[in-house]
Amino acid sequence: MEFRYPNGKVYKPQQVKNKPQLKQRIYGNRGMTLEEDLNETNQFYLEQEIAVVHKKPTPVQIVNVDYPQRSAAVIKEAYFKLASTTDYNGIYKGRYIDFEAKETKNKTSFPLQNFHEHQIKHMSDCLKQDGICFVILCFTTLDEIYYLEAKHLLTFWKRQLEGGRKSITKQEIETFGHHIAIGYRPRIDYVKVIDKLYFS
Amino acid sequence: MEFRYPNGKVYKPQQVKNKPQLKQRIYGNRGMTLEEDLNETNQFYLEQEIAVVHKKPTPVQIVNVDYPQRSAAVIKEAYFKLASTTDYNGIYKGRYIDFEAKETKNKTSFPLQNFHEHQIKHMSDCLKQDGICFVILCFTTLDEIYYLEAKHLLTFWKRQLEGGRKSITKQEIETFGHHIAIGYRPRIDYVKVIDKLYFS
Repeated sequence: MEFRYPNGKVYKPQQVKNKPQLKQRIYGNRGMTLEEDLNETNQFYLEQEIAVVHKKPTPVQIVNVDYPQRSAAVIKEAYFKLASTTDYNGIYKGRYIDFEAKETKNKTSFPLQNFHEHQIKHMSDCLKQDGICFVILCFTTLDEIYYLEAKHLLTFWKRQLEGGRKSITKQEIETFGHHIAIGYRPRIDYVKVIDKLYFS
Repeated sequence: MEFRYPNGKVYKPQQVKNKPQLKQRIYGNRGMTLEEDLNETNQFYLEQEIAVVHKKPTPVQIVNVDYPQRSAAVIKEAYFKLASTTDYNGIYKGRYIDFEAKETKNKTSFPLQNFHEHQIKHMSDCLKQDGICFVILCFTTLDEIYYLEAKHLLTFWKRQLEGGRKSITKQEIETFGHHIAIGYRPRIDYVKVIDKLYFS
């Protein structure tokens, strides 16, 4: 069962540990979702003092709070809001890093509808400030993960706006992106790609 | 009326526009809260392409979601969670910036209980990665705002842990911090202090 934002976009549940609600989000036959793998990766980076990266909380508009006892407030009515930024940001070797992680069941292309206008605008803003911005793209059926620099995503987004295709082909991602092999610790070692691109 | 987290900490309502619920949070007789002023400041920085800084959403543990219609999901049960990081982060001139904003009605000191262990740990982690970390301290009764570098906050926090005073004196803040005059646009021009400390 899918939940949707008021604008019709599908809500992807977050912070659900060990209980992925959407079967298709599991990849690699390991019972883990992309979000869980990234959270563990970030936890590893934090513990090893490699980077400080956190996932932002799901934005929620709180309307009604019940306050039955001295010690606990219960939110009784709230709504999902669309995020105005990407989901992850933080710091690595003094540099600001910012990224979004998305997945598709497709095998031959990555639909651009996975991103929304606000996120594209945010990545563009961060790039202007010289941030390290990218997306983690996961082909769940193929069990393949790619790091794609935001500047390339912006190019493909622009192509769509100009009437071009509404997705990025798998081949384009292979050409412009960087494949990340799934590991044990960390699971999705995106910092290795950052090192290659910015610190070598 | 105050809402509290399960651990007893007072919940400060967020994202409430033009309707500050806690009277004492208004300072400067302008009917604005510190959070609203910072949001407008960040909006100004964003529009002027000076910096990209956003407030993180309030962390909420969602327990029960009702899905009455195709177009809208209503959260029926959720709980406030303690934040594991500071409230604001972003990028300025390529550098990662990270801060927390707090206020007090006190006139002679700033109570350290305004911060919690997680936030101190987070600031310490970010400093190790060479981030620009600080706190915005607002004396609401005095209508005075200060920028205090996280390294100083950590020193005062350590003093408390070693049995010292549980607050930072106003005089210490004046000595180690930087006064920020409240302006029109932007309201709280903290970037000016960053320029002085890191880019001059």
